[in-house]
Amino acid sequence: MDQQKLQTLHTYMNEQGLDAMLLTTPKHVYYLTGFLSDPHERFLGLVIPKQGEAVLIVPALDLEAAQQASSVKTIATHTDTQNPYEVLQAHLPAGIKRLGLEKGDLTVSRFEALAAVIQAADYVDVDVPIRQMRMVKSADEVSRIKKALQITEDALAAVVGQVKVGMTELDVVAELEYQMKKLGSEGLAFPTMVLAGEKSAMPHGAPGNRTIQAGELLLFDLGVAYDGYYSDITRTFAVGEVGAKEQEIYQTVLAANLAGIEATKAGVTLANIDRAARDVIAAKGYGDYFIHRLGHGLGMDCHEYPSVHGENQDLLQTGMVFTIEPGIYVPGIAGVRIEDDVWVTENGCEVLSRFPKELQVIGV
Amino acid sequence: MDQQKLQTLHTYMNEQGLDAMLLTTPKHVYYLTGFLSDPHERFLGLVIPKQGEAVLIVPALDLEAAQQASSVKTIATHTDTQNPYEVLQAHLPAGIKRLGLEKGDLTVSRFEALAAVIQAADYVDVDVPIRQMRMVKSADEVSRIKKALQITEDALAAVVGQVKVGMTELDVVAELEYQMKKLGSEGLAFPTMVLAGEKSAMPHGAPGNRTIQAGELLLFDLGVAYDGYYSDITRTFAVGEVGAKEQEIYQTVLAANLAGIEATKAGVTLANIDRAARDVIAAKGYGDYFIHRLGHGLGMDCHEYPSVHGENQDLLQTGMVFTIEPGIYVPGIAGVRIEDDVWVTENGCEVLSRFPKELQVIGV
Repeated sequence: MDQQKLQTLHTYMNEQGLDAMLLTTPKHVYYLTGFLSDPHERFLGLVIPKQGEAVLIVPALDLEAAQQASSVKTIATHTDTQNPYEVLQAHLPAGIKRLGLEKGDLTVSRFEALAAVIQAADYVDVDVPIRQMRMVKSADEVSRIKKALQITEDALAAVVGQVKVGMTELDVVAELEYQMKKLGSEGLAFPTMVLAGEKSAMPHGAPGNRTIQAGELLLFDLGVAYDGYYSDITRTFAVGEVGAKEQEIYQTVLAANLAGIEATKAGVTLANIDRAARDVIAAKGYGDYFIHRLGHGLGMDCHEYPSVHGENQDLLQTGMVFTIEPGIYVPGIAGVRIEDDVWVTENGCEVLSRFPKELQVIGV
Repeated sequence: MDQQKLQTLHTYMNEQGLDAMLLTTPKHVYYLTGFLSDPHERFLGLVIPKQGEAVLIVPALDLEAAQQASSVKTIATHTDTQNPYEVLQAHLPAGIKRLGLEKGDLTVSRFEALAAVIQAADYVDVDVPIRQMRMVKSADEVSRIKKALQITEDALAAVVGQVKVGMTELDVVAELEYQMKKLGSEGLAFPTMVLAGEKSAMPHGAPGNRTIQAGELLLFDLGVAYDGYYSDITRTFAVGEVGAKEQEIYQTVLAANLAGIEATKAGVTLANIDRAARDVIAAKGYGDYFIHRLGHGLGMDCHEYPSVHGENQDLLQTGMVFTIEPGIYVPGIAGVRIEDDVWVTENGCEVLSRFPKELQVIGV
């Protein structure tokens, strides 16, 4: 197990007076051991005692896969006829008083089964510290996000060339998801969004049977999973020639996107970069039409820490990955959003998404 | 709210001495109110007191959608700055002692937030009774499963005509998922499975870059969501001419599938229909190669009650929907599975899946 991650956890456990932690979110087990699995209804857990070795507990049928992938080499198993919490107990320090758990992951049913066996005095939520650790990404993690982005952007490039007036939004979604699958997507980051004309003004609109017309904007928001990590990108296109209003909105959002990227570097507040982008939009009179935060963390979840909004006074740290996605939504008329994924460096950031951002005319 | 469902719940609540039930699984809220939504991290709940009217509690931004869809007309809302459990408390009977909850759905975090406000003496798990109610499907529910099946089968018909020697399993998966999307799929029931040759002998195999060859079997297991309900169908095809062994396996599985369907009617045990199919396979000497249960319930979950296996002495009830999916898997050689979805009637069953079951030669 990564010694730096382990040390961070041990420091936290000391502060909180924990005797041990049990991590059960499959992605957190993956994050700390390298073993990615979906145990479905079976028990999967990583035990980290305050002293001594970590133990990975897996269903018996996953033993071989866990041995191959896991950096934690002490692996215990349970069969379908065993109580997994008795296996857990055997690998916890004796006389445990305070046990860390992921209370946002564990169901009440599972907790009751666990508590019946373990009988600790206190159960402490450790969801937040793990999510905070995950904010800072290694080069290895970023390489997976880049691969997910490459699949997404290659599919987008292929499909924007095929868009024709008269196709429905859902036709385009089907083409995109087909291309992403062919290019190696392991699943969607979220339902693919393709919104035409006035529907592009709905930040959470759903693609439907609306046909794409000349002279309107077409918004794409999409992403895939690769090796447990996600991409998330938004681009907006012109179907044929669009009006001066649409042009102005587009250029304003693009300027806000660039201002947000420009403001990004370790040590400034998250609020600061939200403001840098928002000020550009407000200056053009569209402040009331930018109705969401600037961005969100991206990694093993599509929305994770940090939250990039105007009230967040936390400081950017080297290694954070998040989206920068300003938008202007004029109800009933049109919307534009331009979303990039960035990796924070000491003096700035690396923009991981590479798809061009000039207003591109398609469908003609 | 459906009066028959409500009466079933009231009978259960009386038996268990519950003052009220709180249902939080979005699909269970849908099942009882007609309002289907994904509240993400926000609170959604249906309160059913032992006397008086049910109350649906939704995030404020979902009020309009809930008013349109819900048969429960008393709807309370909470905003992002309110504690939803205080809204809940206002709609629970005063002095509540025993509250029914879905402990398999509720996380410990949410439960702690609830218990801090509600302070009932006992919290009783009501997951199982709801799942039992859901086993018996109405004609309306079955019409959604049929629509999901139609999308699935139309896609399968289109794609088997396109299969060519040299395509990879993943190529075929991409084509299937594309067609299903185009035909109106609202999402996959599970990751689409296309397995060629010896890989068809892996009941949980994953499609990969293996190319499809002449003379081997090709197994498809797929399904989609439609209006909250799932389809699930498996068919196995011959790529060009296959050998006598493959032919024999295929005909044996087909006979087992038909025997299972023939044995299905209200009043017999689930074990009985598993046995009817299993006996056919055992009689041909393949008993050791049929390594899973005969089937599983199908509806708003892809795997739900009842479990169709040899130890289940529960009786079939009119209206149950489940899969009948015998298989023979000869490791390293080939596997065949033929899966239908059936709806139990008083004297037999209606086979909902319609795709032909004779061994079809494709790819030539």
